[in-house]
Amino acid sequence: MSRLTSLRSLTSSARSRSGLLVPSHVKNALARQTQARFNSSVTRDPMTGELTSLPDIEVSRLQVIQTDKPQPPPDPSSLVFGHTFTDHMLAIPWAAASGWGAPQIKPYGPLVLDPSATVFHYAQELFEGLKAYRDANGKITMFRPDMNMKRMNRTAQRIALPTFNGNAVIELMKQLIRIDKHWIPDKEGYSLYIRPTFIGTQAALGIAPPSEALLFVICSPVGPYYPQGFKPVALYGTTEYSRAAPGGIGAYKLGANYAPGVMVQKEAAKKGYVQNLWLHGPEHHITEVGTMNAFVVFKHPDGVTELVTPPLDGMILPGVTRDSVLALARDHASGKALIDGMPEGKLVINERPVTMKEVIDASKQGQLVEFFGTGTAAVISPVDRIGYLGQDLHIPVGPDGMGPVSRPIWKQLVGIQTGKIAHPWSVLVD
Amino acid sequence: MSRLTSLRSLTSSARSRSGLLVPSHVKNALARQTQARFNSSVTRDPMTGELTSLPDIEVSRLQVIQTDKPQPPPDPSSLVFGHTFTDHMLAIPWAAASGWGAPQIKPYGPLVLDPSATVFHYAQELFEGLKAYRDANGKITMFRPDMNMKRMNRTAQRIALPTFNGNAVIELMKQLIRIDKHWIPDKEGYSLYIRPTFIGTQAALGIAPPSEALLFVICSPVGPYYPQGFKPVALYGTTEYSRAAPGGIGAYKLGANYAPGVMVQKEAAKKGYVQNLWLHGPEHHITEVGTMNAFVVFKHPDGVTELVTPPLDGMILPGVTRDSVLALARDHASGKALIDGMPEGKLVINERPVTMKEVIDASKQGQLVEFFGTGTAAVISPVDRIGYLGQDLHIPVGPDGMGPVSRPIWKQLVGIQTGKIAHPWSVLVD
Repeated sequence: MSRLTSLRSLTSSARSRSGLLVPSHVKNALARQTQARFNSSVTRDPMTGELTSLPDIEVSRLQVIQTDKPQPPPDPSSLVFGHTFTDHMLAIPWAAASGWGAPQIKPYGPLVLDPSATVFHYAQELFEGLKAYRDANGKITMFRPDMNMKRMNRTAQRIALPTFNGNAVIELMKQLIRIDKHWIPDKEGYSLYIRPTFIGTQAALGIAPPSEALLFVICSPVGPYYPQGFKPVALYGTTEYSRAAPGGIGAYKLGANYAPGVMVQKEAAKKGYVQNLWLHGPEHHITEVGTMNAFVVFKHPDGVTELVTPPLDGMILPGVTRDSVLALARDHASGKALIDGMPEGKLVINERPVTMKEVIDASKQGQLVEFFGTGTAAVISPVDRIGYLGQDLHIPVGPDGMGPVSRPIWKQLVGIQTGKIAHPWSVLVD
Repeated sequence: MSRLTSLRSLTSSARSRSGLLVPSHVKNALARQTQARFNSSVTRDPMTGELTSLPDIEVSRLQVIQTDKPQPPPDPSSLVFGHTFTDHMLAIPWAAASGWGAPQIKPYGPLVLDPSATVFHYAQELFEGLKAYRDANGKITMFRPDMNMKRMNRTAQRIALPTFNGNAVIELMKQLIRIDKHWIPDKEGYSLYIRPTFIGTQAALGIAPPSEALLFVICSPVGPYYPQGFKPVALYGTTEYSRAAPGGIGAYKLGANYAPGVMVQKEAAKKGYVQNLWLHGPEHHITEVGTMNAFVVFKHPDGVTELVTPPLDGMILPGVTRDSVLALARDHASGKALIDGMPEGKLVINERPVTMKEVIDASKQGQLVEFFGTGTAAVISPVDRIGYLGQDLHIPVGPDGMGPVSRPIWKQLVGIQTGKIAHPWSVLVD
């Protein structure tokens, strides 16, 4: 959007702010909401960590301002990730003096911020990413939004932004999705990508906890990550740059973790690889795959299949897909909930450090079964090649681009996400 | 500024955009500018690093839109750092397709950005800080702006933002300062803090080099950091958190380096310290003092005075004040330019690693002379206490709050900055 277009949209959205138009289906939803119990809970002072009596986010205070210029959702096949947004957005202001303000669902439109606002200078910003799905019967669900809200609160604390009632934001996101539900493409593999974002908006250059902040949520209809079936990616093993370090911010979904990776990814691309693999320390520990968590599968001489991912040691983002893959695999291994199509024999699941040397040695001995990344956008992203210290390590993939462990886990996970397999992780929206 | 105020300011600034009012003193300055030689130099593609034929920043394309609502500068004694801004700002848009656009000096007012803009999500942002001074005769100077422009370009490359002609931005900043020069408080120790900022503005959620960006400069009149004379600070030696790591971004003036430090500083404050001292690795190497570079002075048994600062190993911000302190001290030590009041005897200057153990051992043996931080805001900030692993290390300071090496260097440096001592670092503005 050009800046001129933004100015025009602002004018129209400012105009529509004068009227408070709440359509009947939203009124009904609001009534249901108010019946449910929402704590008007207290919040914490970001400077002292002390409890304050200032208001938390409250669903009952929601104001809905419908756009007077609804757009037609585009042809799904034309979608590019994160370029198209729905008609409305959710915005919840916070101020140190008054706590959380009234949530607003309003026409999607530009933010108007002083050029001295904290977010422009000191990366006082964090985000989340999750998806809503529509099944064949029109039922709409979100996948594990509680995990995103917990992480968002943890991340906020790390940069001295205030915490909030995550359940209230889940309810508000449900409202937003209900209003814009016709934007979820009615097509297999498509979904609505939801982007909660939290920024410091104080208009002053001091480096301090901001006295004003804004939590907003925007939604973007997205297509399948691999529209023509899985396409394994080649990774460049990055040893020149580091994504995270002990005592740093690698375990938090902060904006600050992302811009520094762009140039590193571009360098990998110039060398002919699709993404980079972040290798940490002198032993080149495997940490993350670009912006995804990393998984390796070994088949040990005793016949045991081992699914490994690096531990949450402070340098690894606690991914929701990571957690889901681990949980499904553990339930299978323990016999609690078997996954169709998993390899025969004993499966063990370990969160433990893994080095490039171990992966290369396993490959030489024919014990490397697969390597993949996990994340909200791609769900599972198989890897078929790693460029490391001038040599290419080739990793087996099946004819469908996947491996024997990731394939059944992916099928199970996507089944749950899209509502085909009933599971408590799938949260009903509408 | 509240969001409502912002909306109002936007309306007024949008209105004044319709007219192009160039006052005569600016016209004259522009004429001088055009006579000077400015390369219409090429720029580099941030994705490939290749030279492109797209336009660089060109001073001759400057448009000046004067505010129709000039504000009276406030009473200097009421100034709080970074809360007050002058009447105008400089803005230079960039787009991947068309290169750098025409620079604009326009009324200070809000940025209007799509909520999906890269800067809100991935910390695609960087900044600089420098000062302009007015001397007793009304002469206005900037201090070493070339250093800031070089660092700004280096930092831009690190996050895949485009580079630019730094000399052109220096000339444009001079224009901005000339227009708002009555905002520089006419009072000893006061100056105009200049904040060049560079943000990714592309309206899309993909993690990639942005296709649009905005470089802007805002100015804030500021008072002396220590209005009642030097007040030494107490530091908390932070071992739980890390500011930077090898292969990371510590050497770049990225927004991403700042938000994560706010909570760490607040924890130090809760423990009774003013700032934190970042200690790196198992040996607790001294790296930085909050957002300042760190200096230690030892007096060795052989009578040699040693001024030490950690080396630019990729984890240390290459501070302009750091560089200036080193250069002045080296010129003194070599006899090239003596500094009045420096201690007698041999002085050596070293950029080398220094650990807390070395500082503590020196203190025990009476060899620790002083410890201070350097930065644009405070220039030199003496330290009188470091809390480290549960114990307080006391550091000598003189009755004026300073030490025997920092005192004469500070005097020399401030003399150059304020134009009292003629020096090529001081760049004439008006």
